[in-house]
Amino acid sequence: MKANRDLVVPVAPSRSRLRPLGLDEVRITGGFWARRREVNTTATLDHCRDWMERVGWTGNFSAPVEERRGREFADSDVYKLLEAMAWAGTGSDTITQTIASAQEPDGYLNTAFGRPGRQPRYSDLEWGHELYCYGHLIQAGVAQIRTRGEGELAKIAQRAADHVCATFGRGGIDGVCGHPEIETALVELARATGEQRYLDQAALFIDRRGRGRLADGEFGRAYYQDDLPVRQATVLRGHAVRALYLAAGAVDVAVETGDEELLAAVVRQWETTVARRTYLTGGMGSHHRDESFGDDFVLPPDRAYSETCAAVASVMLSWRLLLATGEPRFADLAERTLFNVVATSLSEDGRSFFYANTLHRRRRGTVPVTDAVSPRAESSLRAPWFAVSCCPTNVARTLALLPAYLASVDDHGVQLHQYADAEISVGHVALRVRTDYPSDGTVTVRIARSPDHPWALSLRVPAWTEGATARLVDVDGTRRAVAPGTATVTRVFRPGDEIRLELPVAPRWIGPDPRIDAVRGTVAVQRGPLVYCAESVDLPDGREVDAVRVDTAAEPADGPDATVVAPGELAEPHDEVWPYRPPDQAGTPAAERQGIVLVPYNSWANRGPSTMRVWLPTTRR
Amino acid sequence: MKANRDLVVPVAPSRSRLRPLGLDEVRITGGFWARRREVNTTATLDHCRDWMERVGWTGNFSAPVEERRGREFADSDVYKLLEAMAWAGTGSDTITQTIASAQEPDGYLNTAFGRPGRQPRYSDLEWGHELYCYGHLIQAGVAQIRTRGEGELAKIAQRAADHVCATFGRGGIDGVCGHPEIETALVELARATGEQRYLDQAALFIDRRGRGRLADGEFGRAYYQDDLPVRQATVLRGHAVRALYLAAGAVDVAVETGDEELLAAVVRQWETTVARRTYLTGGMGSHHRDESFGDDFVLPPDRAYSETCAAVASVMLSWRLLLATGEPRFADLAERTLFNVVATSLSEDGRSFFYANTLHRRRRGTVPVTDAVSPRAESSLRAPWFAVSCCPTNVARTLALLPAYLASVDDHGVQLHQYADAEISVGHVALRVRTDYPSDGTVTVRIARSPDHPWALSLRVPAWTEGATARLVDVDGTRRAVAPGTATVTRVFRPGDEIRLELPVAPRWIGPDPRIDAVRGTVAVQRGPLVYCAESVDLPDGREVDAVRVDTAAEPADGPDATVVAPGELAEPHDEVWPYRPPDQAGTPAAERQGIVLVPYNSWANRGPSTMRVWLPTTRR
Repeated sequence: MKANRDLVVPVAPSRSRLRPLGLDEVRITGGFWARRREVNTTATLDHCRDWMERVGWTGNFSAPVEERRGREFADSDVYKLLEAMAWAGTGSDTITQTIASAQEPDGYLNTAFGRPGRQPRYSDLEWGHELYCYGHLIQAGVAQIRTRGEGELAKIAQRAADHVCATFGRGGIDGVCGHPEIETALVELARATGEQRYLDQAALFIDRRGRGRLADGEFGRAYYQDDLPVRQATVLRGHAVRALYLAAGAVDVAVETGDEELLAAVVRQWETTVARRTYLTGGMGSHHRDESFGDDFVLPPDRAYSETCAAVASVMLSWRLLLATGEPRFADLAERTLFNVVATSLSEDGRSFFYANTLHRRRRGTVPVTDAVSPRAESSLRAPWFAVSCCPTNVARTLALLPAYLASVDDHGVQLHQYADAEISVGHVALRVRTDYPSDGTVTVRIARSPDHPWALSLRVPAWTEGATARLVDVDGTRRAVAPGTATVTRVFRPGDEIRLELPVAPRWIGPDPRIDAVRGTVAVQRGPLVYCAESVDLPDGREVDAVRVDTAAEPADGPDATVVAPGELAEPHDEVWPYRPPDQAGTPAAERQGIVLVPYNSWANRGPSTMRVWLPTTRR
Repeated sequence: MKANRDLVVPVAPSRSRLRPLGLDEVRITGGFWARRREVNTTATLDHCRDWMERVGWTGNFSAPVEERRGREFADSDVYKLLEAMAWAGTGSDTITQTIASAQEPDGYLNTAFGRPGRQPRYSDLEWGHELYCYGHLIQAGVAQIRTRGEGELAKIAQRAADHVCATFGRGGIDGVCGHPEIETALVELARATGEQRYLDQAALFIDRRGRGRLADGEFGRAYYQDDLPVRQATVLRGHAVRALYLAAGAVDVAVETGDEELLAAVVRQWETTVARRTYLTGGMGSHHRDESFGDDFVLPPDRAYSETCAAVASVMLSWRLLLATGEPRFADLAERTLFNVVATSLSEDGRSFFYANTLHRRRRGTVPVTDAVSPRAESSLRAPWFAVSCCPTNVARTLALLPAYLASVDDHGVQLHQYADAEISVGHVALRVRTDYPSDGTVTVRIARSPDHPWALSLRVPAWTEGATARLVDVDGTRRAVAPGTATVTRVFRPGDEIRLELPVAPRWIGPDPRIDAVRGTVAVQRGPLVYCAESVDLPDGREVDAVRVDTAAEPADGPDATVVAPGELAEPHDEVWPYRPPDQAGTPAAERQGIVLVPYNSWANRGPSTMRVWLPTTRR
């Protein structure tokens, strides 16, 4: 295969329906994501680096064995930080040097295994995370290749990858890692270096999986997707992050090898997962016990796990499927997930994080501790750092590379997938996108540069516009309704030409599929791509959100400061000695009508301890 | 204090509102519980003994350290089996001898700690379960004292208890066990032996708890109730079995020491827990992750943990509170829990068990394995044995001592708390109870022997009769309506006199408190104390239970063979690519009306793989 090291992107398929644009081709210039990215660059990256030093995870690479700190996968968080730094245009040669010093001559690199006094190499594929750690190392290495060209980190990564091929190739250890991640990383390294052997190794790992090579344990083999071969599975299952990273790797392998069957299998899994196992926010995974998907339609809001890393992984998967197929449905899910999970995870100041993203918080809890490691991945608490701290650096790398998710090109023209105030420059085309999306639904695309032959400008019309009317205003001012999917204008564009997309962002009620038992009899409010919630700080008289009832006979309306006001009431049920009674006695008393203030879900928990809920019971009794 | 070794009972308070009756005073002669107890005696006890030998847990007491098998608390299951055998009138001198051989000269006894090659004694109070194991040993010892008088097992237990007092008394290790259980056991040993020091040690453990002596960990200190002192807590929280065993021990201490404040604290915790944290079945604990109570009203049916051991512990607590206060509400919960969790846990043949008792099973799953240890405490599967196999022997000991929960006496007369076909003989009174309860609601009490002065016969009128009419027919044939609570007849009884209680067991709809979000818009059916469920094996055309809708405008009715037929329909929602839509588009299509067959929840999963649900969505759209 041919090396493609020029595109400054996380994913560079050598063949696919759409070609991604690099960080040097797309610049976010203002609005929602510019603010988030600014916080990431000025606060989050340093915050992660500081904590990683404080808890000793960077130090592990130079520390004596007996002083190693953190869980078995702590190395990976250092690598994710380096990846985030690379995409952000920074980097750390100091950390890189320390990592280099810990690499064995044969390429092996891990601070938890394979040294005297530790467990032997690859003696615990189920839980050891050695290949998982390489995966993140390799992704960091690829980011370096693509942002700075060759460098020490890239060399470390490639040595590790060579070691993996030598050790786990045909005739070597016939195993897979308990936590997928190496697969997608190896394909990307193959793309960045042109070395076929990395792709072959990734394909081998995908093929080996699902055949019971990993031990059956408390959570069963589905936990690490070793229950069914990838191409036979019909839905994502088990540990959500593992399932999504594996699916991303399978798409990469399918695309590079032209394996349509494998690609179709992942698309089928994605479809069923989206239809039956995904929260309104785009969040995935409903079990706290094993961080896994539940059965179909098991989506309890108050026990939503919806791990931040699963959201990051879901965006990674959707992006790969979008490039492979060109279908806007994948960008729809990515948008939902970015605005409602990834953006929710991070506090306004960029220094604390949700690990799990609950959709219903019942107790106010206490003021979060800002200077201690949280021993728990609690839904209720943004914490500065966790004992298992995979999420902060995963958010950081996602925000750093976010511009790469906005647009793509193909032989016909340019496609806009996500909307942000931005500048796009690719070949003979330059675009200026002006918008205050998602606060406002108007997206104006001005042509700054264009070839003098016709080409196609495609704009995603989000699926959330269904039932309302989106409109496209052409260069000549003609205006037409556009259905969810893709709106395309094909013409000879001239500099100064403007295309305008008008998306109906007015707040709307959303109801759940009747099979989602946990939210029967409730509705949510969505405004554009944003899911809204009731938060106790906005309720009068110190009331809690479980008193909220809304009336869907009337419509929610925009309020001041990005709020929405929903028609409803605050009504507390009677306390009973036993909470089960004949149905006619089990209702809630009526209460005075009032507007209920709702705020974007991604903004909650920034104003002190509160209760919160996304799904609101209706006044219908 | 004075030794009370004559009562053949698990709980013998030296002072309390009611005095329990012993297994030699109450005999269950037929009906529901007689069948269950027969299976327990003829199948379950041997089954547990065989498995315990097969997996090596009985062998641990004589095995070399390096050959020890099972989890750190495996000893306790051997002790629970011995307790069950003692109440059942059998016992095993062979096992007892082996246990004796493992006891150290100072009374220490544990196969997982305190030997060369093992962790030192009491080096892991959080997770080591050493005191927990003594608790079950002591309960087995007490059972032996009360059924056979002194014996080797009682001596082992008392040596261990003396060791605990010497080691953890004032001036000794200032700690508590991560898993409560020793507290209630020590009080009972004090009652059985008259030795005050055991009571003092139990009181010390209760007093020490809740002050942060145990390490904060992933689950927090609430997990083992070390977050708040017992007398300050307002609700049960954390690991459900731990919370309930601790509360039982606190009641024992409160009763023996006359500590009204402590008793009131536990009653308050019980009240809030019952009003806000208990399933319709009486099951407790909704989190799989840490086997713990959820927040108030977090009671998802499809993720119900409702551990069998928590049900056993809840019955233990309710029984203690009933003896202490005389209030029938405690017998109400015990009845609900016995019929709907304890009876559900065990298969019809007595050889497989639910560890967790879900209220909604969404997938049929596969035929259970009948000859292997289940690595998982799955809700979906009755298994013959578990890696953590606390539940089977807990059910066995409960069934063995069940007659002790039926009745009590006080200075005024006899109280009947649970209804079963039975003979009761205490002092000058003998009663013959005839009933086919809970299939039938008529309970006839015939006086077989009576003193010639007036005394009071009290019968519990179950709380579940509320809204219907229960009637009492007096000796003279007069008939009166009786409200939930206690119905008492005080008179001079003569042999041959009959009192009849007529309980309205017709099936009825039950609705949930509106704050139990997970079951909003659904109803359940209860018939007498029995909770019913829909099970797929009873549905036509291979349909699954998630198609069931019921119409509460009509009433459910008795069907053949203990079934109930509920008016309703089978309707499958359309599949959608995204399961969230404007509420008017999110409904279920109407379908043809038909009767839905329901079966007692405690009978489910005895007819092959099935789906099941207790809470049924209504046809109201």
